[in-house]
Amino acid sequence: MIDKLISRIKTLNAPIVVGLDPTLEMIPDELKKSEICDTLTGFNREIIDAIYDLVPAVKPQIAMYERFGLQGLQAYIDTCQYAKGKGLIVIADVKRSDIASTAVAYASHISDGPWPVDAVTLNPYLGGDSITPFTDVCTEKEKMIFVLVKTSNKGSTDLQDLKLQSGLTVYEHMADLVSEWGKGLIGTSGYSKVGAVVGATFPEQGVALRKRMPNTFFLVPGYGAQGGAGKDLRGFFGKDGLGCIVNSSRGIIAAWQNDKSNVGDAARKAVIEMQKDLQEAI
Amino acid sequence: MIDKLISRIKTLNAPIVVGLDPTLEMIPDELKKSEICDTLTGFNREIIDAIYDLVPAVKPQIAMYERFGLQGLQAYIDTCQYAKGKGLIVIADVKRSDIASTAVAYASHISDGPWPVDAVTLNPYLGGDSITPFTDVCTEKEKMIFVLVKTSNKGSTDLQDLKLQSGLTVYEHMADLVSEWGKGLIGTSGYSKVGAVVGATFPEQGVALRKRMPNTFFLVPGYGAQGGAGKDLRGFFGKDGLGCIVNSSRGIIAAWQNDKSNVGDAARKAVIEMQKDLQEAI
Repeated sequence: MIDKLISRIKTLNAPIVVGLDPTLEMIPDELKKSEICDTLTGFNREIIDAIYDLVPAVKPQIAMYERFGLQGLQAYIDTCQYAKGKGLIVIADVKRSDIASTAVAYASHISDGPWPVDAVTLNPYLGGDSITPFTDVCTEKEKMIFVLVKTSNKGSTDLQDLKLQSGLTVYEHMADLVSEWGKGLIGTSGYSKVGAVVGATFPEQGVALRKRMPNTFFLVPGYGAQGGAGKDLRGFFGKDGLGCIVNSSRGIIAAWQNDKSNVGDAARKAVIEMQKDLQEAI
Repeated sequence: MIDKLISRIKTLNAPIVVGLDPTLEMIPDELKKSEICDTLTGFNREIIDAIYDLVPAVKPQIAMYERFGLQGLQAYIDTCQYAKGKGLIVIADVKRSDIASTAVAYASHISDGPWPVDAVTLNPYLGGDSITPFTDVCTEKEKMIFVLVKTSNKGSTDLQDLKLQSGLTVYEHMADLVSEWGKGLIGTSGYSKVGAVVGATFPEQGVALRKRMPNTFFLVPGYGAQGGAGKDLRGFFGKDGLGCIVNSSRGIIAAWQNDKSNVGDAARKAVIEMQKDLQEAI
């Protein structure tokens, strides 16, 4: 999956993933249906139809669907399936974490079972044995994972920035663990199926992590609405001009609210602008 | 919710939560139905009917339902509703974690929306702003949360046991944050609606955390099948004989496999044995 992702990024010249995180406020009245499932799926289809030929991947945030219960999760599944049908790679932002047989159960998210996705995000607080069931799947199947290392929110300093007696910060220690977990899963692209989440809002740390984890591909949230800009991201990319995929959610899917055009046209325009911004940075 | 939980523990003399984490291997053939939803719900009803008058709470592990997609999650909802109908408190083991509007979306798990539960577990790697949307709900509603501090798995040493330059371990630092987050939510019982997950498999750490977090109620996994025993848990309880609720899943719901009786009778017997074991410890 990592090699396919990188190949698509190269072909499209777009290290961009579109976050499909709709809230009801982001959906124009004329797209609202009587069933929430149809509303969410219909909105996402408008976005996907407008951007599928420009970007390699979409990232649905499962929380935005879980909040509506089973109807919401039906929309999540329908959206993932629709995106895959359009040739997009689906990175599901689920941030799951658990141990033993429970971690195995969560690994169903990338097991070609009920959840039609290609990659998931994971939270590493529980340690290596919470990740192993997922790396086992990655060994067997064309799937990948992104483990939280340094997240884009202010509160990430509460734990991730603490200094350890080893001299490393918690996030640096986590970076080393993630590199270790991914060692056996490096593809022909030079990057591993075990990626890392590294927020755009902490450019210095991102640059240092790029050097620290040369074989780790980054999923970068925090661009756009959260404050990260292309110029901050230069050092997140490797010398090969690769090494990360940058997420934008609100900046693309809610672009119509500032743009006065329809959902799809505004999203497409926002993606093209983001592509330029990133190309200038790389 | 914390005061109700403690009151029920006192009344029943049972600081026990039954983990509803069924796998297909744990379900006898005669309870298997054509639909997975009916199989899981039917099995859980057998357990709940047998133990609802003995224990204050059940803890469904959502991963065990998510693995079966929407059918599984329908069983999760039906199980939670059935348990609540029997007067049980439902602690949903979801270990969710995210930030900003996404954390607000996840807080729907305790917002009396689609998920009929009283409490959830949360993963704190992202920091305080991933917890705030949940404490906001706890301020308004009779709900509570349990934040991972020191988990029961071997891999918990990978991050949680690291020594910080402050002299604290990561889990001790997290314990202090959890105490802080729960300060404004202490009930008449003296315990906060912000609880902590502290594994039974690390007795020394559990005892030290009990002293460190006098107003924090513990959810204790790792008893039974994972290796924790009543005698190890003495120090997890406060001087009031309270302060924690101990989870057992497999030891109760799969007890029929060793007991040669039916699912319900074996579960009831296992709960009564666990109650004796814990009473001797307190």
